[in-house]
Amino acid sequence: MKYQAIIDEIHAEVQYLFGRGNVADYIPALAGVDARKLGIAVHTLDGECVEAGDSRERFSIQSISKVFNLALAMRIVGDEVFGRVGVEPSGNPFNSLVQLEQEKGIPRNPFINAGALVIADILLDHLDRPNEEMLAFVGKLRCDDVRYDESVVESEKACGFVNKALGNFMKAHGNITHDVEAVLDAYYHQCAIEMSCVGLATSFLFLANGGVVPGTGMRVLTASQAKRVNAIMLTCGFYDEAGSFAYHVGLPGKSGVGGGIVAVIPGLLAIAVWSPELNRYGNSVLGIKVLELFTTRTGKSVF
Amino acid sequence: MKYQAIIDEIHAEVQYLFGRGNVADYIPALAGVDARKLGIAVHTLDGECVEAGDSRERFSIQSISKVFNLALAMRIVGDEVFGRVGVEPSGNPFNSLVQLEQEKGIPRNPFINAGALVIADILLDHLDRPNEEMLAFVGKLRCDDVRYDESVVESEKACGFVNKALGNFMKAHGNITHDVEAVLDAYYHQCAIEMSCVGLATSFLFLANGGVVPGTGMRVLTASQAKRVNAIMLTCGFYDEAGSFAYHVGLPGKSGVGGGIVAVIPGLLAIAVWSPELNRYGNSVLGIKVLELFTTRTGKSVF
Amino acid sequence: MKYQAIIDEIHAEVQYLFGRGNVADYIPALAGVDARKLGIAVHTLDGECVEAGDSRERFSIQSISKVFNLALAMRIVGDEVFGRVGVEPSGNPFNSLVQLEQEKGIPRNPFINAGALVIADILLDHLDRPNEEMLAFVGKLRCDDVRYDESVVESEKACGFVNKALGNFMKAHGNITHDVEAVLDAYYHQCAIEMSCVGLATSFLFLANGGVVPGTGMRVLTASQAKRVNAIMLTCGFYDEAGSFAYHVGLPGKSGVGGGIVAVIPGLLAIAVWSPELNRYGNSVLGIKVLELFTTRTGKSVF
Amino acid sequence: MKYQAIIDEIHAEVQYLFGRGNVADYIPALAGVDARKLGIAVHTLDGECVEAGDSRERFSIQSISKVFNLALAMRIVGDEVFGRVGVEPSGNPFNSLVQLEQEKGIPRNPFINAGALVIADILLDHLDRPNEEMLAFVGKLRCDDVRYDESVVESEKACGFVNKALGNFMKAHGNITHDVEAVLDAYYHQCAIEMSCVGLATSFLFLANGGVVPGTGMRVLTASQAKRVNAIMLTCGFYDEAGSFAYHVGLPGKSGVGGGIVAVIPGLLAIAVWSPELNRYGNSVLGIKVLELFTTRTGKSVF
Repeated sequence: MKYQAIIDEIHAEVQYLFGRGNVADYIPALAGVDARKLGIAVHTLDGECVEAGDSRERFSIQSISKVFNLALAMRIVGDEVFGRVGVEPSGNPFNSLVQLEQEKGIPRNPFINAGALVIADILLDHLDRPNEEMLAFVGKLRCDDVRYDESVVESEKACGFVNKALGNFMKAHGNITHDVEAVLDAYYHQCAIEMSCVGLATSFLFLANGGVVPGTGMRVLTASQAKRVNAIMLTCGFYDEAGSFAYHVGLPGKSGVGGGIVAVIPGLLAIAVWSPELNRYGNSVLGIKVLELFTTRTGKSVF
Repeated sequence: MKYQAIIDEIHAEVQYLFGRGNVADYIPALAGVDARKLGIAVHTLDGECVEAGDSRERFSIQSISKVFNLALAMRIVGDEVFGRVGVEPSGNPFNSLVQLEQEKGIPRNPFINAGALVIADILLDHLDRPNEEMLAFVGKLRCDDVRYDESVVESEKACGFVNKALGNFMKAHGNITHDVEAVLDAYYHQCAIEMSCVGLATSFLFLANGGVVPGTGMRVLTASQAKRVNAIMLTCGFYDEAGSFAYHVGLPGKSGVGGGIVAVIPGLLAIAVWSPELNRYGNSVLGIKVLELFTTRTGKSVF
Repeated sequence: MKYQAIIDEIHAEVQYLFGRGNVADYIPALAGVDARKLGIAVHTLDGECVEAGDSRERFSIQSISKVFNLALAMRIVGDEVFGRVGVEPSGNPFNSLVQLEQEKGIPRNPFINAGALVIADILLDHLDRPNEEMLAFVGKLRCDDVRYDESVVESEKACGFVNKALGNFMKAHGNITHDVEAVLDAYYHQCAIEMSCVGLATSFLFLANGGVVPGTGMRVLTASQAKRVNAIMLTCGFYDEAGSFAYHVGLPGKSGVGGGIVAVIPGLLAIAVWSPELNRYGNSVLGIKVLELFTTRTGKSVF
Repeated sequence: MKYQAIIDEIHAEVQYLFGRGNVADYIPALAGVDARKLGIAVHTLDGECVEAGDSRERFSIQSISKVFNLALAMRIVGDEVFGRVGVEPSGNPFNSLVQLEQEKGIPRNPFINAGALVIADILLDHLDRPNEEMLAFVGKLRCDDVRYDESVVESEKACGFVNKALGNFMKAHGNITHDVEAVLDAYYHQCAIEMSCVGLATSFLFLANGGVVPGTGMRVLTASQAKRVNAIMLTCGFYDEAGSFAYHVGLPGKSGVGGGIVAVIPGLLAIAVWSPELNRYGNSVLGIKVLELFTTRTGKSVF
């Protein structure tokens, strides 16, 4: 149980960082979360699963869900996805309209909001009941502890004017084909997925395993596609802090404003952390530190 | 009848420019207009009214209506208007989101789309039946030949995704207080006003007359406010071609993508031109030439 | 002496504004100026010349000189000037590189720094001893009280890295043909011209007089060119505050970071004000107020 | 000799791509290069060195040298480097001024031109004879086949107006402390380094080896620093195509407009390719394909 000791040690060590960030407060459902939560879970390809702290408490995974939807879209239409969304870091805030205007409605990558809306639009072409099927997809990744928080969906809808602006702007450029409201409904459901650290670490294992879900053997993506999702996570997974995360942590990963971060070490493991206080880039303060210490202590990074 | 001769001469002289521009085609209702129309009307403060060509045919005045709504809003709330919208030229296309993002939802001026949406939002605070009252306001300017083209309203709504994006983006910044759909409804009605050159020249006379409607003596704006509307027309009235219009024509004025342009010579007259072919900035090719020749031949400009 | 009474009244009235702005401090030569200076001079076409306060003290006219150089360039090469520089307001700070990059090295107008460098480059094509000839040109406008402050030239050179950046960037785009250092030398000399309010009001009279210097009858520009210079001053003469100046004052004019402002009422007069404290846009706080009161009290504006 | 077979196969296979790109022509010294060159070299940590084609011909490594200088600066001042330059992808062209203006003279990362100028400025603080010492540093990486092409230095200087603009702009913001000309001299020498594929693969091995030069055992960087350089290469090493390179190739690497690309597989090997025809992002067309095939055939990528 070598990871257990490391995880426990790190869990204790990063407590001093509480108070250094701010809980997301743009919707009431997130603002009400206890700031002092910290959960960690590691799930290895050879079946080890270690955890610490609030690792079984569900939280709003928010943007982490963009990885699930990208995988689902790639599974259905393959590389066609990248005709409508790029794979380049944006160099701009996650909800910026500037670059979208300059680049005529083609989002830089699938992990900024505009890109996730395009992915949702693609899914609407192929899914009869998108919200049910998105959730079912996560279930197939061996995470059954997953559900929508409808209060988050409603909150997001009530104040999601920038996303509505993004959607309408891309529709003006022909890069949203469905009704903007329908796309937003799918997008907000996706954002409102609740999972625990344990669930997240488990469900991301296929990306550490060449696209195959360990245990069930279900192939979600080809090995090449899995690598590519990892590449996009590494270059674009942390808003405007992706370079810094690569620099300090050196793993492909994805964060959400709910305070969750999940990362993978290809061929080895997936690790999920949750702590709600965010830095100014929207990434979990303790979460990033946990991952930095984890790669330092284990000597594992992709570099 | 000195202006009659000048107008007739110019009407004949600019015909060679037909074919140099393109009729606005972003909505079917505009695309169907006969490109070869040219109407001119001059209405002086001392009551002379001369006209040439298609001067009594109604056309979609589009953005010219932004002047009416600005005047109406200033009449109701005075300079308060400029707490929510600036008076600076934008240096960007009329429907750009970039500057709006950089300047946190405060549009540069009331004549870009975002600014006109804010003006509409202000009017919704004070008008019980905004669409009826906006039309009635134009009527009080002694133009009774005015109506909405509901097919234009419907067309604009059906494809107005960029405006919807602008409205939602400003709502995210708190600079739209009403429901975005309600604001857009007022805005699209305003854009869909149909008037003739004669009607336009008449209804703009108050801006050449210190804010007072000639004939009825109704004070629409204070003298100072009328000057300020003229100042904003001169610096911001022609999309990203305002400087060029000031340079070549030298009059405060406003254009619309329906091919109309109206301008005033303070203390003297108002002139309206209509010709549907637009240059790349969205301004009427023949319209600008007519005005340039008019100021050159008469020696009248504000400079 | 009607203007004398108005000027005296305004001179007294605006004193309360001292302390509301900041003296330009980017070069030592400007930072050392007494903040409490206020000079006003009005020179009418019929020969009246009234003044108040520090109206005969020379100050660094800085960007006001851009009008002289534009006039000189138009006098030599005519409208050709506008093949290399636009006439549109920039909507950006006066020394911005952003727009210049987007527009491939063509400055928006001749009154932003980049535009003035292009004008200087044009002058270098035609003047054998540019610095002497620029000064001689101002002399021909009946201002003999003019000279360079070489300490300002040296200061500007020593810290003019942004201007050097602008010059090199335009040279990369082929819009500067001479050596960048030579262009900057001419530009910094131009900026370092010292004049008094009386001198400025006198030397701008040709722009109120259809291009002809009153008294000598020398034609500097055609009537059309003079109008166009006025148009550019109105739309672009006050950095990113041009619209506001048009709105509040309503006259073509030009300001400089030395605290000077000069404006013209076509057909009537030129007025110059100097007070070193600047607002955040780089325009004289008291200067703008003096002009606003002057147009309000006299009822004169172009609108 | 498994890599030999793969390299030979790929060398033959990519020939069909000749003619799909353009040789850099902004300076004569590069424009004159034979477009049909293709060299490949792989150097493994266990000493294997395989090569194909023009692998021993020296070419201008251009921006690849930015990795050497970053390593040298980190070796001297450590993480202090990142107080003056970021580690985020820029999302903009390599020589853009826009972002630099928005971010007040702090370049996004050390691999865009502005960032490399800051690195050169740092080196000038610590190196007595910078040009000699930069070359000596590469020599210590066990590449003795290295020299400056002075004709490239002269060409770059003669037309390097954008770099001069960048340098002056950062000096205006205080992020260049030395004379801009001195910084540019060091920068242009660095860009003008000539090496072969064999030399490049060898000299990059320390980045695959935790910061230690294989063979000599010289520690260039700490293991953590070596990982970080790799991270920056992965997120920022290919101009505005870094995400795509991560997506298609999945290795940390760096390209230059001379047509060279070098990449490392941590713990395993370094690979260098040279072919002068560039795609629209400034990266070698054949070079990228060679690397994509190499990672596909060997199954090696960091993801």
